[in-house]
Amino acid sequence: MESTHRVLILGGGFGGLYAAKALRKAPVQLTVLDRRNFHLFQPLLYQVATGSLSPGEIASPLRAVLRRQQNTQVLLAEAVDLDAEHRKVILDSGDLEYDTLIVAAGSTDSYFGHDDWKRVAPGLKSIEEATEIRHKILYAFEAAEKEHDPEIRREWLTFVLVGGGPTGVELAGALGEIAHDTLRRDFRSIRPEEAVIWLVEGGGRVLPTYPADLSAKAEASLKRLGVTVRTNAFVTAIDPTGVTVKTSGGSEQILARTVIWSAGVQASPFGRTLQQRAGAQLDRAGRVMVNPDCSVPGHPEIFVIGDLAHLELDGKLLPGVAQVAMQEGGYVAKLIQKRLRDETVAPFRYFDKGNLAVIGRAAAVAQIGPIHMSGLLAWITWLFVHLMYLVEFSNRVLVFIQWGFLYLTFNRGARLITGSDPLSQPAPVAEAAKVAK
Amino acid sequence: MESTHRVLILGGGFGGLYAAKALRKAPVQLTVLDRRNFHLFQPLLYQVATGSLSPGEIASPLRAVLRRQQNTQVLLAEAVDLDAEHRKVILDSGDLEYDTLIVAAGSTDSYFGHDDWKRVAPGLKSIEEATEIRHKILYAFEAAEKEHDPEIRREWLTFVLVGGGPTGVELAGALGEIAHDTLRRDFRSIRPEEAVIWLVEGGGRVLPTYPADLSAKAEASLKRLGVTVRTNAFVTAIDPTGVTVKTSGGSEQILARTVIWSAGVQASPFGRTLQQRAGAQLDRAGRVMVNPDCSVPGHPEIFVIGDLAHLELDGKLLPGVAQVAMQEGGYVAKLIQKRLRDETVAPFRYFDKGNLAVIGRAAAVAQIGPIHMSGLLAWITWLFVHLMYLVEFSNRVLVFIQWGFLYLTFNRGARLITGSDPLSQPAPVAEAAKVAK
Repeated sequence: MESTHRVLILGGGFGGLYAAKALRKAPVQLTVLDRRNFHLFQPLLYQVATGSLSPGEIASPLRAVLRRQQNTQVLLAEAVDLDAEHRKVILDSGDLEYDTLIVAAGSTDSYFGHDDWKRVAPGLKSIEEATEIRHKILYAFEAAEKEHDPEIRREWLTFVLVGGGPTGVELAGALGEIAHDTLRRDFRSIRPEEAVIWLVEGGGRVLPTYPADLSAKAEASLKRLGVTVRTNAFVTAIDPTGVTVKTSGGSEQILARTVIWSAGVQASPFGRTLQQRAGAQLDRAGRVMVNPDCSVPGHPEIFVIGDLAHLELDGKLLPGVAQVAMQEGGYVAKLIQKRLRDETVAPFRYFDKGNLAVIGRAAAVAQIGPIHMSGLLAWITWLFVHLMYLVEFSNRVLVFIQWGFLYLTFNRGARLITGSDPLSQPAPVAEAAKVAK
Repeated sequence: MESTHRVLILGGGFGGLYAAKALRKAPVQLTVLDRRNFHLFQPLLYQVATGSLSPGEIASPLRAVLRRQQNTQVLLAEAVDLDAEHRKVILDSGDLEYDTLIVAAGSTDSYFGHDDWKRVAPGLKSIEEATEIRHKILYAFEAAEKEHDPEIRREWLTFVLVGGGPTGVELAGALGEIAHDTLRRDFRSIRPEEAVIWLVEGGGRVLPTYPADLSAKAEASLKRLGVTVRTNAFVTAIDPTGVTVKTSGGSEQILARTVIWSAGVQASPFGRTLQQRAGAQLDRAGRVMVNPDCSVPGHPEIFVIGDLAHLELDGKLLPGVAQVAMQEGGYVAKLIQKRLRDETVAPFRYFDKGNLAVIGRAAAVAQIGPIHMSGLLAWITWLFVHLMYLVEFSNRVLVFIQWGFLYLTFNRGARLITGSDPLSQPAPVAEAAKVAK
């Protein structure tokens, strides 16, 4: 009897999890490896950072999601190296052999060489960073309430979001709502609605990957929420007193005690491991250049999917978004099964379902094929799409009810300042989730 | 015009919050001071520690709870000292004057002089400790799954709960359910139901403050969930390899990697401040001996309520439970208002509504006056009472739905291993919440 084909997936994010689910009936022995014991629904992470949802509501234990797959094992470990010749991944605790390897190790924040900015301006990639940002935002209002010096009070009430992509826009919108609605009657010395929220974007408009008309609509919605948008503006320095921004008109210093980073990502360091051990080529952002079937050139048994993969279709690089990762995961799962039956598969095709970004209560922008939407209709679409995806992870009812409460009352239930010392500014979390995110 | 009477409440727990709410229409200027920005519904903290609920579901922002009280201000700060003569509390940031002071600073875990045990065996008093315990429990199963040495695997699957009060019993019951139901099909190498759960109690029975028949019923329920109960057993040592237990039969070493402490509490250190600065007398546990009206002898303007107060009624010390704190808070609020009108108030009377402890799915024990209940009926009573209290803090619907899910599916949605390094055992949290919890 032939031994069962062993498939190893590195990472339980959207790419890895969808590959695993698509292999549930395959005649393979499947192992999903991650540093974390849960799958994170990253598109809603900004809602944890802004106190609308609790971490448990957007995270699902990997074991629970995959428990019914008899051919699947979940392992909590970190992949530290690769022996491509002997088809082995080296873990922090032992080795793991594979016949086919799917690398879905994702990406981390990129500070473009300024890693010291991370201490002051956390990104939004993990649960820990989300609760750190929540701590920073809520603590800033508390500190302002206690502060007698109007200058320092103003610094506490100034928030700078670096990066005008979907995360920056969604955070800015939520912050605007927190200041204007959620906290409105909560304080006695300060007026939270006097908070100043900056959104700094290097490109010419927010949501640069969206159609221009939707960028304009998003910017208008943000302005209604009191957000000051600065485009064509580059951050040249970040320190605990604030941010220095360079525009064509010169340099500007924004005094602010809260800075959040969402300006860029870089590929997981496991890309470099693939370069050294399997001869893979990397692009400038550290992504692995893959064949049209997502495999690593020279290694048909190694696939790279999701944010870590560099794949161009019709001359355009596929973006680092959940739907690309999910579709690649499903594609590679199909390919593996066909290959076991000695069948061939056409190269990967991407079906772009569109783009959605939410700006606030009943305000969003959406592009679905040729259709551009904004306002309430886009917001309802956003709601529906996200609930649909959450369905699979059993949290949908709770999230829906939280949103219902929030919509009706403006109250954010998860406004907790947690951490070892709630009375000081939060220390940045140690860099978690290095590889198998 | 006379200036408004200033009332300062230290601590936003059950005592402080209920005093504040009862003063909502009083002609006073009220300040509630806490180190944390939220009120914690501590009776459900064990459900966070065991992955049933998320922190946000049992915590309510103090500002949100008190936002409608126009006479009330919430301040996030720590009380570090007292100047009773000048009626001032010294904060970490400035001073605060009062005309009447209500100290509701609560209690912390007591390790009976063995503070080094805290590193290995966390208690269950704060959100941070609850997520640390959750990390420890879930990590233990993950580590066992990866472990090849059967001896070490057994140590990972052995859990020791020190202290057979309500917290210990509730944790033991939840752990039994996690091992037997929640995780049953999640692992491939280990069988979670082989987990060994010890409950070690120094007294002659679990739930020592309950009627003896209910203690026996609780013990029987625990045994059905696979929990080994050791009564008349004292812990003499705790280290990372396990626990040493002394019984009349001699000493016994339990090899275990997870130990949780719920054996005792000590009063907040602010009791000592009251001793030094206001001449208060403390009992052996550090509680402040108060007059029958909860005031400090010699200081009619200072009240101590809740876990920090030592008050005997009919020769019996009132226990450190939520309902005592809540009733004392309401009583002191009434007293203050009557005093402002030059009226007098009878000494505090405690109305004991009964005791409830839940052991697991559809299993609980309850004593309500002369009525003793166990099993499903007690469990429904427990459910009803806790939902009733949660009503006031807007989270009840969510919690109810979480419980509905849990009951139907055995799945615990908040099973997250979080923290800076999910692949190592959690570091103990810094001692948070010293005074004003």
